[in-house]
Amino acid sequence: MPENLTTKILRTHVDSGEVFPGRDLTISVDQVLLEDATGTMAAMQFEMLGVDSVAVPLAVTYVDHNVLQIDDKNMQDHQYLRTFSARYGLHYSPAGHGISHYIHLENYARPGGVLLGADSHSSMAGGVGMFAVGAGGLEVAVAMAGFGFDFVCPEVVGVELRGRLTAAASAKDIVLELLRRHDVRGGRGKVFEFFGEGVSSLSTSARGTICNMIVETGATTAIFPSDSETRRWLVEQGREADFQELSADGQAPYESVESIDLGALVPLVAVPHSPGNVKTVAETAGVELSQVCVGSSVNSSYEDLATVAAILKGQQVHPGVQLTVTPGSRQILQTIIASGVYDDLLQAGARMLEPICGPCVGIGQAPLGNEASLRTFNRNFPGRSGTAEDRVYLCSPATAAASALTGVITDPNEAAIQPLRAAVHAPGDIHSILISTPLPEETRRGIEIARGSNLVPPPEPGPMPGTVAARVLTVVGDDVSTGDMAPDGAIAMSVWSNIKACATFMFRRIDPGFHDRARQWGGGIIVGGENYGQGSSREHAALVPLYLGVRVIAARSYARIHRRNLISVGIVPLLLPPSAPATVGDRWIIEGLIDAVASGAMEVTASVNDGQSLQLGLELSPSERSVLVSGGLLAHIRNGERPNMSSAVTAAMTEAT
Amino acid sequence: MPENLTTKILRTHVDSGEVFPGRDLTISVDQVLLEDATGTMAAMQFEMLGVDSVAVPLAVTYVDHNVLQIDDKNMQDHQYLRTFSARYGLHYSPAGHGISHYIHLENYARPGGVLLGADSHSSMAGGVGMFAVGAGGLEVAVAMAGFGFDFVCPEVVGVELRGRLTAAASAKDIVLELLRRHDVRGGRGKVFEFFGEGVSSLSTSARGTICNMIVETGATTAIFPSDSETRRWLVEQGREADFQELSADGQAPYESVESIDLGALVPLVAVPHSPGNVKTVAETAGVELSQVCVGSSVNSSYEDLATVAAILKGQQVHPGVQLTVTPGSRQILQTIIASGVYDDLLQAGARMLEPICGPCVGIGQAPLGNEASLRTFNRNFPGRSGTAEDRVYLCSPATAAASALTGVITDPNEAAIQPLRAAVHAPGDIHSILISTPLPEETRRGIEIARGSNLVPPPEPGPMPGTVAARVLTVVGDDVSTGDMAPDGAIAMSVWSNIKACATFMFRRIDPGFHDRARQWGGGIIVGGENYGQGSSREHAALVPLYLGVRVIAARSYARIHRRNLISVGIVPLLLPPSAPATVGDRWIIEGLIDAVASGAMEVTASVNDGQSLQLGLELSPSERSVLVSGGLLAHIRNGERPNMSSAVTAAMTEAT
Repeated sequence: MPENLTTKILRTHVDSGEVFPGRDLTISVDQVLLEDATGTMAAMQFEMLGVDSVAVPLAVTYVDHNVLQIDDKNMQDHQYLRTFSARYGLHYSPAGHGISHYIHLENYARPGGVLLGADSHSSMAGGVGMFAVGAGGLEVAVAMAGFGFDFVCPEVVGVELRGRLTAAASAKDIVLELLRRHDVRGGRGKVFEFFGEGVSSLSTSARGTICNMIVETGATTAIFPSDSETRRWLVEQGREADFQELSADGQAPYESVESIDLGALVPLVAVPHSPGNVKTVAETAGVELSQVCVGSSVNSSYEDLATVAAILKGQQVHPGVQLTVTPGSRQILQTIIASGVYDDLLQAGARMLEPICGPCVGIGQAPLGNEASLRTFNRNFPGRSGTAEDRVYLCSPATAAASALTGVITDPNEAAIQPLRAAVHAPGDIHSILISTPLPEETRRGIEIARGSNLVPPPEPGPMPGTVAARVLTVVGDDVSTGDMAPDGAIAMSVWSNIKACATFMFRRIDPGFHDRARQWGGGIIVGGENYGQGSSREHAALVPLYLGVRVIAARSYARIHRRNLISVGIVPLLLPPSAPATVGDRWIIEGLIDAVASGAMEVTASVNDGQSLQLGLELSPSERSVLVSGGLLAHIRNGERPNMSSAVTAAMTEAT
Repeated sequence: MPENLTTKILRTHVDSGEVFPGRDLTISVDQVLLEDATGTMAAMQFEMLGVDSVAVPLAVTYVDHNVLQIDDKNMQDHQYLRTFSARYGLHYSPAGHGISHYIHLENYARPGGVLLGADSHSSMAGGVGMFAVGAGGLEVAVAMAGFGFDFVCPEVVGVELRGRLTAAASAKDIVLELLRRHDVRGGRGKVFEFFGEGVSSLSTSARGTICNMIVETGATTAIFPSDSETRRWLVEQGREADFQELSADGQAPYESVESIDLGALVPLVAVPHSPGNVKTVAETAGVELSQVCVGSSVNSSYEDLATVAAILKGQQVHPGVQLTVTPGSRQILQTIIASGVYDDLLQAGARMLEPICGPCVGIGQAPLGNEASLRTFNRNFPGRSGTAEDRVYLCSPATAAASALTGVITDPNEAAIQPLRAAVHAPGDIHSILISTPLPEETRRGIEIARGSNLVPPPEPGPMPGTVAARVLTVVGDDVSTGDMAPDGAIAMSVWSNIKACATFMFRRIDPGFHDRARQWGGGIIVGGENYGQGSSREHAALVPLYLGVRVIAARSYARIHRRNLISVGIVPLLLPPSAPATVGDRWIIEGLIDAVASGAMEVTASVNDGQSLQLGLELSPSERSVLVSGGLLAHIRNGERPNMSSAVTAAMTEAT
C-alpha cells in the first residue's frame, strides 16, 4: 500500500502506539536540539531525571537567543549549558556561532531521521526530508534521556507545488500563502508534506524556510522529499553519506491535498499582529517604515542575503530607515564575505549583526512604537520585538530590500533585481569547527557543572488535586501566544532560567495585574479563547502558571505544543464550550477532577459561584491522562511508567549508519 | 620665543583671556563632536539657546552608544538626533556606522585645529596634531552656537618618546605606562604633548590610542606633532589638503618633561577597578578569564585588529572564553574584510560585533560577576560593564589575543606573533558615504524634528540661592566616577534623554537609597572625596543632582569636566578640607553663598548641625564665578554675558582654508 513520506519515517521509528491520526504514538528520536532560551530549563529537567548521559545518537546545544548580555545572567546560562553539555555528552555550539536551525541544517539534519527540538521552529530540518518537531523542554529532556517522544499522531496534508517562482517571489511567499489559506489555527494536528514538479526548483534553504514557518499555521511540522537538491546540499556540506533519496509513494494517501501555482504567486506580507494576517504587498504598499530587519531562523540563508544584496547593490538605504542584516550562521557569514554579498550590504548602509536570533525575539533592535517595522521573520505577535506598541510586518527578503530603498513597503517587482552573486565558500566555512563534540564518557563524569545564581530548577507539580476549588484569575482572548505568558526581549528573556523571576512578566501586556492577583489568591484558573498558547514552544508559559498555583486552564482550543507543556507540568487543559461566560473572580469548584481524568471521562462539571454548573471538555489521549494522573511527565517517567528505549535506539542507529 | 605645540594652537584660537596655565581662556572652536549618549542632552540645550543654526565650521552627530535597542527608547533618540542634525546643519553618522572618535579621525580631524566633543575621549583627535578636548554637553552646545569654549588654560607636560616598541608592546602600553606613573589624578590640569625620535615609529591610530586614553589620568588632552606619518594618514583618507606640518619649537618650554624608553616597555594591564591600577602582564599572568573583548574607541583600529589576528590565526580561542571583536568604524570593518583579518578572527572563534561602542559602555557583553574579563578598553570602573560585580582588566590588543588563546592572562611575548596582514582597502571603504551632510539653510528650516516621549528637555537651575540650608545626602569616597552618577549599560543609558528617569540610577551601586532620600529631603548636599566625578563627560552626573535639588557639592577635589558641568548647571563645587568630618543627615547652613561667589572670596563657612563651623574652599576662576552668579551657563549665555564669535570664527576659517 502506497505511503506518504511522513508515514514512512514514523513507521520506522515507532516504539509504541499506532501511526494513525489522533492516536497516541511514541517514537524513537535520532537527534535532539536545544537552544539556550528554552534549553536551560530542559537541561535542568534532564538533570532531575537522574540519568548519567544523553541516550540519543545526537544531541546539540546551541547558544543563539540570549547573547546580548545586558547583565551577567546570559553568561551564567551559557556557562551552565557549556558545562552541562560537556558533562552529559551533548555537542555545544557557542554564542555567536549561528542560529540553531541553520547550523543544524548544515551539520546534522538528515533525510529519514527524527529530530525533536526544544524550539518550535525545529521543523526547519524538514527541508531535507527529516521528520522534525518542536516540543517543550521537558518532553525534549525526556526524549534525550532515552524515553522517546510521545505525541498524538498528526494528519498528513499533501501540498502540490506546480511551476516556478517568479524573480520577485520566494519561499517566504509560499509559506505566507499557506498562512493566508490556513491562518494561525488551520494547521493544527497536521503535517504539511510537499510534492510535485515545483519542488525541484526550490533550494534546500528555501525548503527550510517553508518548514520553519509552517508552524505558524499551528501545524506539527512540514516535510519535503529528499531529492537531487538534497544530495547537492549534503555534498556541499561534506555529508554525502547522510543522503538517501526519499519521497512519498505514487498515489500516496493524504488527509487532503492542496496545490500552489508558484508562477502565480505574488509577494505577500503578514500585517500586524499575526503571521496569519496575510495580504499582498500591493495591498500594503506605501506603509512608511523606520526599520527593516533581514534575518532570523526563517530567512537568513546565503540565498536570502544574496537576494537582498542583488536589490541593494550600488544604492543606499533610505535615510529614514535602519536596515539590519543577520546571517543565519558562521558558514553563511563566511560565504557572504567571500562572495561579495557582505560588502554590497555594508555599502548600501546595512547594519551587519552577528549570526544570532537577535531582533526576531526582541534581543536588540526594538523598533519605534507605532511606526512600522518590516521584517523577514516568522512572528509578529504584539510586543515580541521588545516594543510594547510595535507594528511589525513580515515579508520575504526581496520585499524587505525593495522597501529598505524606498522607505515604504514596496513590491520587489518594482525593484531592479540584479543576478545573485554565486556562493563562494571561504576556506574553513563548511565545518563548524567551533562546535564542541562530546567527550569520552569517563572524562565527562569529572566535569563540574557551572551553576550561577540565575539557574534555578523549576517547580514540580506534585500530585494532581482530586478537586479544584479556585477563582478565575484572568479571561483572555483568542490566539494568545506563549510570548504573552513568557515575553520575548533582552530583559524578560534573561530570566528564563528562573521561573519565579519569569512569573512577574506573565500576561504583563494584556493583564498587568495577573501576577500579583495570582500571588494574592494563591493560584486560580486561567480562562482562554481559541488557539490558546500559539507560537513558541517555551514551557515557561506552563511552568509559570504552575508556579503561581494554576492546576486547571479552560480554553476554547489549544495550540499543540503549549497544550502538551501544560499536561507535562500537571496542568489540566479543559475545553470551554463556545458560549460559556467567565469573569475574573468567579469561583469554580470542579469535583472529582482526578477521577474524571483517570477514568477517561470526556467531560467534567464546574460549579460556578455556587450556582450554575458548567460542562467542560476533557479531550485527552490515554497517554496524556496517564501523565496527568502521575502528577506531570517528570513524575511519570521517574515512576517508571514509560520504558527507556535508549538501548533499542542505539542499536537501530548503529545499524542504520 | 620658542613655543610648544599646544600653545601654538591655542594662541591662534584665543578669543579672550590668556594662554597661561590656570587663567580663564576662551577659544574659538573649529569642530564639534556629538555622540548619541550625551548628544541628546547637548542638542536639547542647543535648542534652548534659541539659535537658528550651528555656528562652527563643522559639527557632527555620531550614533554609536545606544544602539542595541532593547526597547523603543534608543530609536527615539536616533530619530531626534537625525532630524535635529538636519534642522540645524550638523553632519549625521547613523547607528552602526562606527565609533565617533575613529570616524572623526578618518574624516575630519586636522592638524592645528580645535575640536570640542561632548565625549571625554574626543582627545583622540590629538593623534593628528589637533587640540581636541572633551566637555559637557551644554558647554559643547554653547560652543556650537558660536560662543566659543571657555576653560581654564592647562599646563603642558612634555613626554619624550625614545627608541621603538618591541613586537609585544604597543601604544596601549605607552598610555598604561603614563597611567602607572600618574594614576587617575596626576594628569589633572595638564596637556601631555609628545615629542622625540620615538614618535615617528607610531602610526596615527597608535597616537590616537594614546590621546584617547590619556584622559584617564585626569588630563585635559594629549597631542602629537603632525609629521610625515600624519601626511600619510591624511593622504590615505583622501584629505591631503588638511595636512600641515606642526610641532613644538626646539627648546620649547614645558611645565615638566618626562621620558619613555619604548624599547624597555613591557606589556601592562590595569587591574580592577581603576585604569590607574597598572601592573605588568607578568605580575597578573595566570588570572583565569571567561571573556576577552577587543574594541572600543581606544583600540579598534585596523592595526589593533590585525595584531589580534596575527596572534590568533590558525588557532582557536580557549573554549572557556568568549572573545568579542568590535571594529572602530565601517572603514576599518571593510579593511579587515578585504585584508583577510576578519576571516582570521572569525575562524579563531571571535564573535564579530558591529562597529559601535558596545561592551565598553556595558551595551551588551556584560561579563560574569566575580570572573575576570580582559578588555582592550579605556575604563574598568566598577559596574561599567553592565555587571555589578564585574572584574575588568584593561590591556593591549596583543595581550588580549594571547590571553584569549590560553584562557588566562598571558604575556604576548609568549605567543607567536605572525606578520601583520597588510591593510587592503576595499572599494568605497574610505569615504563615509553614509554620513549625511548639512542641507542648504533654506531647506533646513522646513525640517520637522522628531520628539519621542523619551526626549525630555533638562531642568534649568534658576537663580543661585543666597544661602544654602540643607542636609548632607550622601558621603562618598575618592575617585567616584560619573558612571556612578549616571551609570552605563543598555538599561540605564536608554533613559539618558530624560533626567527624571536617569535620576533613579544615581549612586545606585554605592548608595542605593540616594535617590529616594534626595526626593524625601527635597534636595541636599553631596559630600565627595578626591577626584570627584572622574571619567566620562556625561553631564547627566550634574543634571541629576540639580533635578534632585542639589545646589552645592563639597569634595576634596574634582575631575575637570565634571567640575565644569556642575558649574554649568549652577551647582557650586566647594572644596572640603582634608580632615573635615561629614555624616549623612548633617544639617549645613552656608550663608551668603552667592555673595561669596560673586565677590571672589576663596572660602565660605558652613554652620554644621547649628554648632561647629566648617571652612569650605571656593576656588573658582572669574569666568566660573560669573556663570554661577548667572544661574548656570544657559542663563549666562542667554543674558548676553558672553559674546557670540561665530562671525569672527567663520571669517578666520574661510581664510585658513
